[in-house]
Formats: sequence, C-alpha cells, structure tokens
Amino acid sequence: MTAGADGAVTLARAYLSRVAEPASIPVWDWVRHHGPVAAAESIQAGDVPTDVARATAARRTAVRVDDDLAVAERFGIRLVVPEGPEWPHFAFSAFEAVARTRLALYRAGERTQRPGGELIPPLALWARGSGDLSLAAVRAVAIVGSRSASSYGEHVTAELAFGLARHDVVIVSGGAFGIDAAAHRSALAAEGSTTIVSASGIDRPYPSANTKLFERAEAGGLVVSESPPGSAPHRHRFLTRNRLIAALSAGTVVTEAASRSGALNTAAHCTRLGRPLMAVPGPVTSAMSAGCHRLLRQDPSPALLVTSVEDVLAVVGSIGEGLAASVPSIAAGRQGDDMRSALDGLDPVARQVFDGLPARGVASEDEVALRSGVSPIEVMRALPALQLAGVVETGPDGVRISPAFRRRRAG
Amino acid sequence: MTAGADGAVTLARAYLSRVAEPASIPVWDWVRHHGPVAAAESIQAGDVPTDVARATAARRTAVRVDDDLAVAERFGIRLVVPEGPEWPHFAFSAFEAVARTRLALYRAGERTQRPGGELIPPLALWARGSGDLSLAAVRAVAIVGSRSASSYGEHVTAELAFGLARHDVVIVSGGAFGIDAAAHRSALAAEGSTTIVSASGIDRPYPSANTKLFERAEAGGLVVSESPPGSAPHRHRFLTRNRLIAALSAGTVVTEAASRSGALNTAAHCTRLGRPLMAVPGPVTSAMSAGCHRLLRQDPSPALLVTSVEDVLAVVGSIGEGLAASVPSIAAGRQGDDMRSALDGLDPVARQVFDGLPARGVASEDEVALRSGVSPIEVMRALPALQLAGVVETGPDGVRISPAFRRRRAG
Repeated sequence: MTAGADGAVTLARAYLSRVAEPASIPVWDWVRHHGPVAAAESIQAGDVPTDVARATAARRTAVRVDDDLAVAERFGIRLVVPEGPEWPHFAFSAFEAVARTRLALYRAGERTQRPGGELIPPLALWARGSGDLSLAAVRAVAIVGSRSASSYGEHVTAELAFGLARHDVVIVSGGAFGIDAAAHRSALAAEGSTTIVSASGIDRPYPSANTKLFERAEAGGLVVSESPPGSAPHRHRFLTRNRLIAALSAGTVVTEAASRSGALNTAAHCTRLGRPLMAVPGPVTSAMSAGCHRLLRQDPSPALLVTSVEDVLAVVGSIGEGLAASVPSIAAGRQGDDMRSALDGLDPVARQVFDGLPARGVASEDEVALRSGVSPIEVMRALPALQLAGVVETGPDGVRISPAFRRRRAG
Repeated sequence: MTAGADGAVTLARAYLSRVAEPASIPVWDWVRHHGPVAAAESIQAGDVPTDVARATAARRTAVRVDDDLAVAERFGIRLVVPEGPEWPHFAFSAFEAVARTRLALYRAGERTQRPGGELIPPLALWARGSGDLSLAAVRAVAIVGSRSASSYGEHVTAELAFGLARHDVVIVSGGAFGIDAAAHRSALAAEGSTTIVSASGIDRPYPSANTKLFERAEAGGLVVSESPPGSAPHRHRFLTRNRLIAALSAGTVVTEAASRSGALNTAAHCTRLGRPLMAVPGPVTSAMSAGCHRLLRQDPSPALLVTSVEDVLAVVGSIGEGLAASVPSIAAGRQGDDMRSALDGLDPVARQVFDGLPARGVASEDEVALRSGVSPIEVMRALPALQLAGVVETGPDGVRISPAFRRRRAG
C-alpha cells in the first residue's frame, strides 16, 4: 500500500486525512507535536484540546480506515505520506518556512494576522498513476485559468503546455474544463507528464465528463488528492486544493482568467509561497484576460509577463536547473566521493544561505535570513537545492547542516 | 508673427532652427551661454568653437531667414520661442533637469556616458493651428504605436483616444498611418484637441495622404515641428522628433507596437524624462503586440499596464489634477491674494522639494534632491507643479524660490 512507510503510520495518516477537512491548523499542529500515530489515537479517544476536538468531532468515531484503504486498493490508489519515499518534502518545505516566518513576525507584532490554513502542508495525499510525486514536483510548472476559456486562452495554454512538456516539464493543474483540461491534454499530446490535483476523491473525477482525461493523466503521470476516496467536490476543497497546485510546482502560469476566476486564488498561493507567479496577457477587449492583467499590475509583487515557452523556462529554468545541477552532487555523496563538491554546483544565493547556517544545531529560516543577509523568501527558495544537494536538512524546528555533510567537511 | 517675443530674438531663433539639424548639443550649449541673438550672429560670422562650426558649416551663410518667415506667414505658421508666451516651459523643463542631473553624475564618475542630444529641448518650434502649445502640454497624453497596426491596435487606440479626449485630455502623437492617425482621428471625433508633432516641415505633411488629418488637427489643436518649413521627412528627424512627443505630454501610452517599432524609441524618451510610460497588452499570438509586452517586462522601469481610459487617467490624472489644483493659486497670486495658500494645494513630495530649496539663491536640481531627500527624478516631476503654482522659478543654473513668493511670505 505505502512502500517504505510503517503500517501503523499509514493507518494513522489515512485516519487523519478523513477525520478533519483539509488544512485544519489545530489538527496539523497536533500531529506535528505528537506524531501521526499518537495524534490519531488521541483524536479517536476524544482526548484532545478544544480546537482539535471541534475540527474532528463530527467524524472521529465514524472513520473506517480499513474500508478507505480497501476501496483505495481496489481502485489502485495509494497513500503518500511524509514518512514514505514519495513525499515531495522540498515542494512542501515552503509551507513550513513561510508559516514559521510569518508566525515569528506575528509574535514580534509585525504582522497582525496569525498565519492560516493556506500555509500548511497536507497530512497525506491520495495518489493514483505511474508517476512518482517527489520526482514530478522537482521540475513542474502549474498552468491554471478559467473554466470558461476563450479559444485564445485554450490556444495559448496548449502552446505553453506542449512546449514545456517537450522540455520535460511536468504540467500541474486541476481537473476542470477550460484551461486546466487544455493544459493536461496538450502536455499528454506532447508525450509529457501531468499531475492533476483533484478537489474530490480520486475515484470521483470531477467534472465526470473529464474521466477519460484523468485516466490518461494517470497513465503518464499522476492524479492526487488531499481528500480520501469518495469525497465530494465541495467548494472549500477547491480553495484548499489550490495551495497544493502552487506548492507542487516551481512556478504558476495563469494563461487566461476572468477577474473573479478561482485561478487567482492559486496565483495568490503561489506568491505566498515565494514561487514565481507568471501571467499571459491577452486582448484588453476580452473580459477573459482581465484577471491576468490584474495580476500583472498587482502591487506589490506583480506577476511576471510571459508570452512563450522560452519566457517560462527563463523563469523556472533557473530553479529546475539549479536542482538538476545539484543532483549529481547527491549521487557523488552517496558514492562516498568528496561532498565538498556539493557546494560548488550551487548558485551564489544558496552559498550565502549555507554560510548563514550555524555550525552546529538548528536555526529557523528567519534566523538563517538574519545571519546570511538573504531575505526570508530567498532563503526559502534556496533551501530545496541545498536539501537536494545533501548539505542541509529541514525539520519541524528549522534547518541545520546535514550531519553527513558536516562529518565529511571536517574529515 | 511671434506675439510677445522680440523681433530680433524671433529672427535669431528662426536662423538657429534652420542652420543646424535638430538636437545639436554644441549649438544648444552655445545658445544657452550667449543668448539666441549673439549666438546666431557669431555662427553666421563663423566666430565659434570647432564643434559649433562643424554643426553649422554647411548652412551658416545659406540660411535666408526672411524667406523662411515669409513662407511661414503665407502658410499661417508661427514660430514659438522660449522668450514668447506660448513656449511650454514646464513640459521642457524635464530635459534640462535630467540633462543637468546626468551631467553632474557623469562629472562625478557615476555615469560613463555624457548626456546626449535626446535630452535637450528644441531651440524653437514651428506651429500651426488654433491651439496654444503651453496650454496643450499641461494636460496631454501621448498615444503612439506601429504604422502597420492591426484592427485590434486601431480599436484599442480609438477607444483610449476618444475616452481621454472626452476627459479634456489633449492627444499628442506623430502624423503617421496606423496608431498615430487612429489616435488623432478618434480624439477629433470626440471633439477633443490633438497635437501632431511632425518630423518634416509643417507645410509638408508626411505622409501626404494624411494631409486632411493635419488640417483637421490644426482646426481644433496644433501641428508643431522642430524643423523649418520645407524640411523633408529625413529619418533622423523622426528620432529627434520622438523626444518632443514624450516631452509634450504628461505620459506616453504605447497601444500597439511590434518589437522594432519606432514607438519604442518614444517610449525610451518618456522613461528618460521621468514621465510615466504605459503600454496596452495584446494577444501574445500577435507580433504587433510584442513591443508592448517587451516594455511591460523591461527591467528596470517596466511600463505600467493599462487596459482602459480609467487606467490611463489614474496614472496621468494625478499629474493633471495636481497642476489643475495649482492653477487657482497662480490666479490668486496674480490677484494679490495671500500666495502662501499656493503651497496648500501641492502634494507632499512637491512640499518636500520646496522645503529643499535654499532660502536665497539658486540650486541645481540635484542639490535640491540632496537637500530635500527626494530623488532627482521626483524633484524633476514636482517642479512643473511648483512652477505653475508660482512659488518656484527655473533658469539655466537651476531652481530658486520665486522672488514674488519670497516677498509675500516675508511680508
């Protein structure tokens, strides 16, 4: 069912993914402090603080984990968990980094709002398909937009998705009509790989008219959902789903969006996570491009204007290539070669972030930002490459130099 | 011929406007130091430094000023000079401010390039039409773009020009086919006022197929040219002409431009002068919008994305309204009312710039920038409003508090 993860952990995470609606901060915090197994047990027993109890009261004794897992198995669905090998750690590390930075700023009185559920990673992900989520998220671009797309929007989306897929970029999007479907179809036509992030259970493709598209996506890629099998496409699940589209990609492109499109919500998540947000302009005479034009003008942090595959690659390429360049270092490290070379492939900012880490012990991302003189957002952007290069490890309390790398340096 | 300007000055400026090609720095500098009459006499006598001699050698004894002025009179063309009442002082003050700031930076070794001819005002302007240039430039917007415009480009241009004209904005552009013509036609259809800045002599409308358009522009506005009557539309005259389009407007909108359009040259002048540059996006599938998209992306100082009349007014409105609010103060001053109120209508930056002026004597714009803590570009932007409010005067050596205002404050 879940290769590499403990059976008790899988059962616990399956329970947790059903017992509360996605993106519940109290539940996430409870799991973070007690681990999934103890957290699931205490929730089931009702032995939890009020806020956790409130989020789980309705279902805590009604969840039938064995049934969920049996249904999943029958439909070829697996549970991807943080303790297993397929979990996209670095894709989700941005959540914790941003949440921790914001929490620090909130406590210091510099932010008036406590960070919310939009900033927490999922407790587990249900997945179906031949792809590996941790690999798919390394070099992925999200393409999103309106359901009621114009022929211009669908055309531009198809061109971008096709060209990016030809450059081995995984296309991430929802499963809706319009831009979502155009992006997946075109990437699949280019024999590329796509990830559909579903707001409903994977066994309930929504809209059902796109069932064939979901099946084709699974053949060459993945369909994932934060909600367990059987879950209906409730509205709030689309909003929490959107943060995952942004998190599972190196950047988000809005190809066509009206001024009230849900794609603008995904765009906001992208910016919040410190990932590059891109938008394709269109005729100012088309209401279908008004949302894109708003993103291109928003102050602060306007979207980057992109008009071609090359433009998008110029934006996300630096991220993807930075990662790609780091991968041989990991291999070298694993083969016992001198890991000091792992630092050579990194860009100057990543080097600077590395130099801001304490020689021993853990530091929060904002402490690293302070010590290195690099902004918190840049720190967060640099961490995936440092993790992939094997020189840094992240945990719930922050970042540290990986013990293996420290030993090798000292030796 | 030139109401309010001395006959000798008019003759001298007419001579100067013919003797060298537009935007000759040596000639402009010579006139600046010796005044137009002495400068013209010394050029005619050949009693000038080498660089001035080189710029004027070909024509210095061949110019027939009387003939030029006679032709001008026959065609209803007048000469607008800095010494006369129609000169748009504040529109052109940006040239001197920027040139002086850059010259100071160049001398301090912070810029490697000496400021060039793109930064000098004209020596005189030939004009025809019912409009008053100094008034037309107060609330004007330039609309420029490609000659070979698409129907989308012409449509967007027409919408913007019509709507702006309805808001009493004067439309400034060249006289070419495509975007230029669409902008003028639409402003005239809205019974608005337009200014055509011609690269050839006013009596030689170019392209000649637009002759009727030039005539209609003169009926409700102006046609102006830096080159004297009879001048042919040489290529370099378009490039020097473009700086005047940017200078004679509060901001420039590029509505549609291919990637090598001359409109991008006007856009560069706009940015150089510190005026807001705007661009209208279009379909990324249209090569005719590629220049606009480039402007929207350029780093530093990307163009502002505008999609409607309201967007443009939001950008230039603050300038126009700032000026409009100041006008009553001038009137009040002229009527002998307390001029201290002139400061009340100014925005905070203009107040700050005013506070950076020395109590007595003249300061360069960059000295004012240093003293006020406002950037040189902001100083330059604020000066027109301060001049119009009657509290500041500018001259060749810099800026000072107007003596009338100082007396009134002291009294």
